[in-house]
Amino acid sequence: MNRNIYIDNIPQEKALQSFMDGLQACGWFKRDAELIPVRESLHRITAEPVIAKRSSPHYTASAMDGAAVKSAMTIGATEGNPVNIMAGDYLEVDTGDFVPKEYDAVIMIEDINFFPDHIQIIKAAVPWQHIRSIGEDMVEGDMILPSLRSIGPYELAALITAGVETVPVIKKPMLAVIPTGTELVDSAQIQMAPGDIVESNSYMLMGLAREWGADCLRHDIVIDDREQIRQAVMDVKSQADLIVICSGSSAGREDYTASIVKELGEVLVHGVAVRPGKPAILGIIEQKPVIGVPGYPISAGLIFNLFAKPIIYRKIGALAPDNETIPGTISKKLPSPMGVDEYVNVNVAVINDKMITYPLNRGAGLSSILVKSDGTLHIERGQEGLEAGSGCNISLYRSRREIKNSLITLGSHDMSIDFLIDILYRDHGIRLVSTNVGSMGGIMALRRKETHFAGLHLLDENGGYNISYLNKYLPNEKYLLVNLVKRHQGLVVAPGNPLGITGIGDLARSNVRYINRQKGAGTRILLDHLLKKEGISSADINGYNREEYTHLAVAAAVKNDACDTGMAIFASAKAMGLDFIPVDVERYDLCILTDIIPEQQLECLLTVIRSGEFRERVNRFGGYETDLTGNIIYRHGY
Amino acid sequence: MNRNIYIDNIPQEKALQSFMDGLQACGWFKRDAELIPVRESLHRITAEPVIAKRSSPHYTASAMDGAAVKSAMTIGATEGNPVNIMAGDYLEVDTGDFVPKEYDAVIMIEDINFFPDHIQIIKAAVPWQHIRSIGEDMVEGDMILPSLRSIGPYELAALITAGVETVPVIKKPMLAVIPTGTELVDSAQIQMAPGDIVESNSYMLMGLAREWGADCLRHDIVIDDREQIRQAVMDVKSQADLIVICSGSSAGREDYTASIVKELGEVLVHGVAVRPGKPAILGIIEQKPVIGVPGYPISAGLIFNLFAKPIIYRKIGALAPDNETIPGTISKKLPSPMGVDEYVNVNVAVINDKMITYPLNRGAGLSSILVKSDGTLHIERGQEGLEAGSGCNISLYRSRREIKNSLITLGSHDMSIDFLIDILYRDHGIRLVSTNVGSMGGIMALRRKETHFAGLHLLDENGGYNISYLNKYLPNEKYLLVNLVKRHQGLVVAPGNPLGITGIGDLARSNVRYINRQKGAGTRILLDHLLKKEGISSADINGYNREEYTHLAVAAAVKNDACDTGMAIFASAKAMGLDFIPVDVERYDLCILTDIIPEQQLECLLTVIRSGEFRERVNRFGGYETDLTGNIIYRHGY
Repeated sequence: MNRNIYIDNIPQEKALQSFMDGLQACGWFKRDAELIPVRESLHRITAEPVIAKRSSPHYTASAMDGAAVKSAMTIGATEGNPVNIMAGDYLEVDTGDFVPKEYDAVIMIEDINFFPDHIQIIKAAVPWQHIRSIGEDMVEGDMILPSLRSIGPYELAALITAGVETVPVIKKPMLAVIPTGTELVDSAQIQMAPGDIVESNSYMLMGLAREWGADCLRHDIVIDDREQIRQAVMDVKSQADLIVICSGSSAGREDYTASIVKELGEVLVHGVAVRPGKPAILGIIEQKPVIGVPGYPISAGLIFNLFAKPIIYRKIGALAPDNETIPGTISKKLPSPMGVDEYVNVNVAVINDKMITYPLNRGAGLSSILVKSDGTLHIERGQEGLEAGSGCNISLYRSRREIKNSLITLGSHDMSIDFLIDILYRDHGIRLVSTNVGSMGGIMALRRKETHFAGLHLLDENGGYNISYLNKYLPNEKYLLVNLVKRHQGLVVAPGNPLGITGIGDLARSNVRYINRQKGAGTRILLDHLLKKEGISSADINGYNREEYTHLAVAAAVKNDACDTGMAIFASAKAMGLDFIPVDVERYDLCILTDIIPEQQLECLLTVIRSGEFRERVNRFGGYETDLTGNIIYRHGY
Repeated sequence: MNRNIYIDNIPQEKALQSFMDGLQACGWFKRDAELIPVRESLHRITAEPVIAKRSSPHYTASAMDGAAVKSAMTIGATEGNPVNIMAGDYLEVDTGDFVPKEYDAVIMIEDINFFPDHIQIIKAAVPWQHIRSIGEDMVEGDMILPSLRSIGPYELAALITAGVETVPVIKKPMLAVIPTGTELVDSAQIQMAPGDIVESNSYMLMGLAREWGADCLRHDIVIDDREQIRQAVMDVKSQADLIVICSGSSAGREDYTASIVKELGEVLVHGVAVRPGKPAILGIIEQKPVIGVPGYPISAGLIFNLFAKPIIYRKIGALAPDNETIPGTISKKLPSPMGVDEYVNVNVAVINDKMITYPLNRGAGLSSILVKSDGTLHIERGQEGLEAGSGCNISLYRSRREIKNSLITLGSHDMSIDFLIDILYRDHGIRLVSTNVGSMGGIMALRRKETHFAGLHLLDENGGYNISYLNKYLPNEKYLLVNLVKRHQGLVVAPGNPLGITGIGDLARSNVRYINRQKGAGTRILLDHLLKKEGISSADINGYNREEYTHLAVAAAVKNDACDTGMAIFASAKAMGLDFIPVDVERYDLCILTDIIPEQQLECLLTVIRSGEFRERVNRFGGYETDLTGNIIYRHGY
């Protein structure tokens, strides 16, 4: 077995330059044009100047509703001394009507009295008044649009007016995506084997390419077989202007892309010093660019943005739109290796006029992060990362207005937060960004004033919730503690409860594989509290150190037999069709910093929490009690 | 004949409010949803929260290429003291592969030495290292997207990964456009009758509506017949969510829209205090909005933007994107009536870090202005207009970057400027904005430093060009005078020269209808010079006071028999297939203010002027001489 595990580490701008140079040298940037019907040309780009085929108006036209007259006949007309013009000497006209050459002025309707056989003019006309001359708008031979102009709705109307029936536009480059991998399946089936992965990267890349102005075709999934992948490249080569091979760009056992590109053409770059996405391949086969992207979605998206976007825009002669860039303040230390350009997805919210920037999980395999992300932070090569609180520049995916209209909640996770997110946006246009950092993480974020509010369910030694922690950690803050829900905590077990677990005591059994929540999570604190009460040591629990970050993840692990039980809320067991052994009811409150949350947004938040719909959705889900929902539990600093 | 010439004058925000209220009351904003295949959902908007159908990964997965092991077997492994693991006790895995439950760690490939029957581990494993837990990315039951979220490429990939196969999205509202007018034709024919107009507004409105998220259908053109228009409304009513009747919204003889809306439903507003676009109609027929837009393209576009855009965005639950707004400085006085909200199209260019804003011609019939425009200036009701040099806010159509990359030339018109525009943008990405204000207008703009350069062809009493004028009007400026072309000026006449015109002397003949250029135009100064030489008085010329603003417009007037002759350059006669009687060769120079034009852009401009392509395109056009093209004629202030 030949495992070539070494790939290059070429700086990103050098990689792009060598790709661009290679494509330039083989003439790939030469623009292809096609002639299409003008009425189908919306959002296309002109390939050459478009010339008016006719003048507009092509005749002398009335600019008003009224009557065309000889101006000489109106001399001296006033309201007190109107001039009569007899039928035959005038022509009634509407706006846009032809004014024959015997007339040299139009009188507007407001200055005319109409009679059966004549009209009365109450205002003298200046020669050529209210007459649009031929070509006033456009003249035959005028350049209507220069080369490389995007045809928007207004351009479209102007072209039609200018008598243009077909228009030369830049041909859209055709992207062919080849998804490879024996593990890939085309769509999710109920019973997918472990190791099967639904192929989704091709749709992401095609969506991006379409936004950039390309057409796309997708080859069927190809298994990890060198000959079959090679054949797929041969198959799409003639139709495609740009080929992307999805995954197979690293140096694992079944990664054939580089070797195929080398065989059929030239590999310019294999391995770029970026994170994520290092194993990218840039090559040329028969004067056409080929990009090998890694399999993880965030890596694939980044590599495609870095290398496909600039070549597509250059090929079609358009300016790549800049994402808006805003200065932010990073919420936590963000280490990064010196040698790479790293791109980190972030959330952004405005707190006290500062754009607080929250780095998201850097796992390149998390497509959920791409959905959560508000933009990216670029840590340049040579930088060692960023200290908490330092300035940074964020390239935004969303509009600044959407960012300004966002609330952020860092704290413990609860499914009811999703209902808040949904209703707040739908009914009030407020985007709520929620990041799960556990209850203690939420308190720390409140202390640093980096979150508008936090979800907390922290049990103290006296059996109370949240308040003693807040008194300890937030002695000087002004806040409201509002109950969101009460919820049932318990042990999630497989359907039928095969191990016969009845309570906390059973967790110490050696045949029970437990899965825990991360440190600082309220659920973990509850477990510790219950273990103490029962006199059980954490060392006796198989899996006490194995951590998940959400209730649902705990339930999923049980469902998939990765463990036998874990503590979570009822809702998560229900979502997964699992059994649930209740052990406690806990209060899940929101601690809201009223000094930093804008007043109107606070009002909307409370309105949603107290709405019938929220309560109804929570109750329908099950495992919750809403008798305290929306109540103010505690008020501090007022 | 019943000419109802009076319509209301309702303030724009009141009109919109009453439209919104009416639609709200009849339930039109209720959102319609449809379930569509996820792979066709790009750029659609979710109608309700979308929930993960499966966890991702749905199995414990390797996060690395390497080998899955029991971590306990690797204790103590180091480079100096590797641990052997025999076949059967490990499993070779690639990234994404299933890690069965007998293993609890993955060793990355870099830390393994491979042998035929065993592997050597050179680094001890921590339990659960490099293993992705079930649901690490997404957990079954998680909300992937809330309601009203636009599905971009990243969202699309996440939905597919989450096992979502169909997604509930907001149904696109269907816009039906009914173009009305007996004068309308579907496409330009070679021999269109005077009064015929190519219907283009419907395509502009459909293009806009598509950008805002609607689907569109277009009814065939309907002639000005009340019953036929009424029938058209009845025909589209069942398919459409929103009906727009194009033109027929004013109170001219054939304007039936208001009466039809009144018959079939309710007219909420007829006449809005905006300019242009006053005669707009807003109504409701059977719980559906109907908008009557005026016939002039700029009015139609404005009314559609003011009233269709907000209701479409509200209907689909999306935020209307804000055009970027920038502060500008208005280049000239802009009067506006107190009682209306006026929207003026403008060009914008950066000069000395100021955003100079140039109001464009306010003729609502000029679709060419919509193409030229960089954005609009809103003069609010109650304002009497703007003084030259005062501040204003511009709502931009183009990106700020495109504006920053613009040069402006105010001065005399020449077709060769179009070649500059084309090549400068195509090859250098520089947008050149050209506005024809005549040669004297150009000199005044240079004086006020409101243009980067100006095209001039001003003849002085001694037969010289431009320099004496510059010495007089720009005594203290730093500039380069560069020749662009020399060009043939002459009299444009109908093919075959039916009136036998041979030179300037013939213009005094009473049967010759002349058309002049506007005051300050170099061509008019040339005419005056030649008339003086021949001893002819301007009063003897029939049409001396009738003005056109460009060479091509003069030629168009001749072509369409609106006059018999006019003075223009050869190029314009050729473009129109007319005859040409040469009377002079003139120098057309660019006066470039080198203090305000950025150095790099000046370099590009000179490169283009001196390029073979520019010279070739000019010569191919004819009527030009290029022996001086690109030469520096005069240098001042250096």
